[in-house]
Amino acid sequence: MNKHTRPEDVMRPEVTTGPLPASKKIFTSPQGHDDVRVPMREIALTNGDAFAVYDTSGPYTDESATIDVEKGLAPVRLDWIAERGGVEEYEGREIKPEDNGNVSGKHLARDFPNLRKPLRGLDGHPVTQFEFARKGIVTKEMVAIAHRENLGRQQAFEDAKANLEDGENFGADIPEFMTPEFVRDEVAKGRAIIPANINHPETEPMIIGRNFLVKVNANIGNSAVTSSVEEEVEKMVWATRWGTDTVMDLSTGRNIHNTREWILRNSPVPIGTVPIYQALEKCDGDPVKLTWELYRDTLIEQAEQGVDYFTIHAGVRLKYIHLTAKRVTGIVSRGGSIMAKWCLHHHRESFLYEHFADICDICRKYDVSFSLGDGLRPGALADANDEAQFAELETLGELTKIAWDKGCQVMIEGPGHVPMHKIKVNVEKQLKECGEAPFYTLGPLVTDIAPAYDHITSGIGAAMIGWFGTAMLCYVTPKEHLGLPNRDDVKTGVITYKIAAHAADIAKGHPGAQARDDALSQARFDFRWEDQFNLSLDPDTAIAYHDETLPKDAHKVAHFCSMCGPKFCSMEITQQVRDYAAKLNEKQAGMDQMSEKFKELGNEVYVPAEDVEKAKAEAVKVSNESLKGTPAAE
Amino acid sequence: MNKHTRPEDVMRPEVTTGPLPASKKIFTSPQGHDDVRVPMREIALTNGDAFAVYDTSGPYTDESATIDVEKGLAPVRLDWIAERGGVEEYEGREIKPEDNGNVSGKHLARDFPNLRKPLRGLDGHPVTQFEFARKGIVTKEMVAIAHRENLGRQQAFEDAKANLEDGENFGADIPEFMTPEFVRDEVAKGRAIIPANINHPETEPMIIGRNFLVKVNANIGNSAVTSSVEEEVEKMVWATRWGTDTVMDLSTGRNIHNTREWILRNSPVPIGTVPIYQALEKCDGDPVKLTWELYRDTLIEQAEQGVDYFTIHAGVRLKYIHLTAKRVTGIVSRGGSIMAKWCLHHHRESFLYEHFADICDICRKYDVSFSLGDGLRPGALADANDEAQFAELETLGELTKIAWDKGCQVMIEGPGHVPMHKIKVNVEKQLKECGEAPFYTLGPLVTDIAPAYDHITSGIGAAMIGWFGTAMLCYVTPKEHLGLPNRDDVKTGVITYKIAAHAADIAKGHPGAQARDDALSQARFDFRWEDQFNLSLDPDTAIAYHDETLPKDAHKVAHFCSMCGPKFCSMEITQQVRDYAAKLNEKQAGMDQMSEKFKELGNEVYVPAEDVEKAKAEAVKVSNESLKGTPAAE
Repeated sequence: MNKHTRPEDVMRPEVTTGPLPASKKIFTSPQGHDDVRVPMREIALTNGDAFAVYDTSGPYTDESATIDVEKGLAPVRLDWIAERGGVEEYEGREIKPEDNGNVSGKHLARDFPNLRKPLRGLDGHPVTQFEFARKGIVTKEMVAIAHRENLGRQQAFEDAKANLEDGENFGADIPEFMTPEFVRDEVAKGRAIIPANINHPETEPMIIGRNFLVKVNANIGNSAVTSSVEEEVEKMVWATRWGTDTVMDLSTGRNIHNTREWILRNSPVPIGTVPIYQALEKCDGDPVKLTWELYRDTLIEQAEQGVDYFTIHAGVRLKYIHLTAKRVTGIVSRGGSIMAKWCLHHHRESFLYEHFADICDICRKYDVSFSLGDGLRPGALADANDEAQFAELETLGELTKIAWDKGCQVMIEGPGHVPMHKIKVNVEKQLKECGEAPFYTLGPLVTDIAPAYDHITSGIGAAMIGWFGTAMLCYVTPKEHLGLPNRDDVKTGVITYKIAAHAADIAKGHPGAQARDDALSQARFDFRWEDQFNLSLDPDTAIAYHDETLPKDAHKVAHFCSMCGPKFCSMEITQQVRDYAAKLNEKQAGMDQMSEKFKELGNEVYVPAEDVEKAKAEAVKVSNESLKGTPAAE
Repeated sequence: MNKHTRPEDVMRPEVTTGPLPASKKIFTSPQGHDDVRVPMREIALTNGDAFAVYDTSGPYTDESATIDVEKGLAPVRLDWIAERGGVEEYEGREIKPEDNGNVSGKHLARDFPNLRKPLRGLDGHPVTQFEFARKGIVTKEMVAIAHRENLGRQQAFEDAKANLEDGENFGADIPEFMTPEFVRDEVAKGRAIIPANINHPETEPMIIGRNFLVKVNANIGNSAVTSSVEEEVEKMVWATRWGTDTVMDLSTGRNIHNTREWILRNSPVPIGTVPIYQALEKCDGDPVKLTWELYRDTLIEQAEQGVDYFTIHAGVRLKYIHLTAKRVTGIVSRGGSIMAKWCLHHHRESFLYEHFADICDICRKYDVSFSLGDGLRPGALADANDEAQFAELETLGELTKIAWDKGCQVMIEGPGHVPMHKIKVNVEKQLKECGEAPFYTLGPLVTDIAPAYDHITSGIGAAMIGWFGTAMLCYVTPKEHLGLPNRDDVKTGVITYKIAAHAADIAKGHPGAQARDDALSQARFDFRWEDQFNLSLDPDTAIAYHDETLPKDAHKVAHFCSMCGPKFCSMEITQQVRDYAAKLNEKQAGMDQMSEKFKELGNEVYVPAEDVEKAKAEAVKVSNESLKGTPAAE
């Protein structure tokens, strides 16, 4: 292949496909909804059992699916949207050279070859999931979500609801079972969102809310400095493979429009963006030149493509900007600083704030959810929970109500860099100010001193804030503050945040959440090594690490591990303990039996002395036998 | 060099030496104690400042030190011990072939070539730090520790004690300044320990207690399956380089004695062991053959070598063992299961429990601290906080009091695998049952589903339990549950736990803890890239990650990073915000001035109308000028 003569081949993204180890894609339908197929990943265990887990990876891990990135994924929700009505197909906005940074020729990323015409909602009809919910209408998305979130709940219920009673949920309202009606009610209350642009019918429905499983977002995106369309599409597929629930495309620089199109058409998860990034590219990177008209045009461009949620920094008001002056790191949000610069230069209130109702009208038409950005979030522990941050949060609360009035779905972004003892108040204040709209936080990092390990510094904060009630956790990769994440960094970031989200689910008492832990620990105890690997979040790495010490296949069925070696094993001893305990129980049963006998004897006031002695001797015999215990090893 | 003809060269451990980037070793002495030299690492910043950090790495990072592992480190505490008196030098126990697993010839690790005769304490004299503390005597170790722990406190005090007032310490009693007397008092109360065997005078004094900086332990050790003396010595040096406060040598298999000797003679940090591991090797790995006499002999062997603390699973009592029978993972502590097997086989109470007072007599003689082992700790979320775990904890409380009565120092080991909502009660119960003796926990892991990432699953739990009051955190590496940690794993484990410990210090409101975060964040804001790297826990990795995206040296002084690129920078905008805020202040000053003018005018009841208009116009002019604001960029 010659790269220069056949550029179309170069542009064709290659993506990772195939199932995870011992896994297969399964689909199940909720009763009475054969047209709703909910994907799960079923892990086959060596003991004949199977364990199903929540699956975000779309058709890429389905062996029976044909993947063609030129065609994009099947638009599974298209019929549902058409069925509901209230939308029209139209020509859509014309793509302009500036949408791709005015590049041409070999620098221009190839157009996605299979474009649909966009849809838009009509006035007077419900379009957004919020509008349907408010009208009491349960959408197919809600049906699918209830089924998807119910995974493991039946088993938990049968296991006497151990976890539900066990957790500490800080006022969340997690049901034993999910019903479509519960989903609808949570969306109607604004406590959960279903990011599902009508122009992104390829998504598998998912929900973000405090009473649902904690979700994870992964950021990808090319930048002015480096990376390509191919890499970004693969990063999206790769991130969903490891469990990200949504992906944000934060591309800057050139080819933004075309990169996003390829990502959207191939993404089974909702895609979020920060539209001001592209708007800034359209005015040569100079924030001062931004206008409402330019921004508005960009919103429509992206809404027509199918972006599911927009980060909009409408809370960065002119009057708050000076509050950041004494901070150690000032304004660290890119969107926040763009708007701060615009406001300062023009000495005007933010056009995002002033035109917020107009933005809502656009978002409603396509059901683009709001992710109200925290443009004044702290970028250092020293700046956490300060006046600037909380002033903006109050404004986000005000905007939330406007968006709801306009029929839009809303979540709220949160920090950032926050020491552990200052995390909880962030959730409490967000819930209060924003009417319990879902919280979506970046970490937070609990210390600033570990660049290269900020997936960990932030994973600590993420687990805690997820437990306290945050609905979605935006990942941080090891490259945070240092460079752009590569494929390995994306994976490490996603896995770290799956850990945080899952730990939060367990601590909240989410029914069924601990089932996977129990299954894996049982496999560990039984020396079912393969099952231990396959039930883990990252089987590939678990196997690789195991093989570094004990590379032989035989060791994967061995009843020992590298810590104790073959001679002695702590796990082995537990079987002996169990035998012992069983004997203790026998002994107890024997004692109970004797006790009954004594009682019987006691009932007869006069008993022949020899009968009593006989009963006593029998009791001692039972006791001695049960105490004989377990055989010595080997 | 021919390996086969010169085996002594092969056996000579090669260790990592040299300072960290931009760092140098400094020593300072507390006033009036010129013989007490406390090591710190001073990081030179590019703005001319210097920042001192706590330093565990010993002479290996001191450019002026000569490192010779054949000689071992200088026995800095030897004079102090001699000065205090109450000890005698003696011949010591003869080394037996079984001490090294009966290996010989080329399989036998070379003897450490420079042995001292051991010391032991005399009856009727204080020997342990606890005994001195109880007698009101401030040891040199205490003086050194107060100075060492005071790092950053003066500055914090000058900065209006922001952190002290800020944190949430859950009842800890952290002073603004450390005094030797405070250290003594905490040791006397049993709330802190100074692990410092009189036969390990090479250690730099350090303390473990809830009112001091949270400490980190790293486990190393060869095993029956793999690894060598050389690797283990280097792992010890390597772990201290990255900040571990103590090291546990958990070697099993052959050459245990000689491996430990090389480690001890070259270790600047306290060394802990689990003596039952070696005792087990001495009876061919069969727990049933263990005897008190064999164990006692092993304690003396290790105490004479200089082990600073012993993990002793004396809380695994016969009557508790059956409580683990219904667990998902039974008994996972190696020491715990050894003792369980012994107890079950012989149907006898544990000889560790029955001979605990005798063990105390040995430990007192050498000042070996107790680390009372949690042999029944949970090995899975499902088993957390169960009856077995808490029954053992109550016994550890009983043993703590016995050890104190015998003059010994004690800390208590804790779990393990615990979901987030069950962590806090572990600390509360430990403090209550064990009279506030320091808690020393392994993680805990907050989920079981991420083998290969258990440094992270446990780092989350470690940060939280450290915040709640745990004094030392035992690291977990990425290889946990899978294999033996290599050099990279050791580093990753230590850095992860330094993050957890530091995050805990900050959240507790430890004075001065946040100073490093603030310095690093300030460097980040100022685009002092080198300072950002050098102030971090792992400069090498931070630099490597940065260079992956922007490898040119010029970029390290560039006023942009790879996230925004050279065209636009959020940090740059903050300077403009500052200019703006300064003008706002000017405006305010102007307003105040005008306001004064109006007041003056107001004092005259009748004022000519034109004077009022003139004053108003002047106020508007000031206001307009100050609002003119900042110039547009470029």
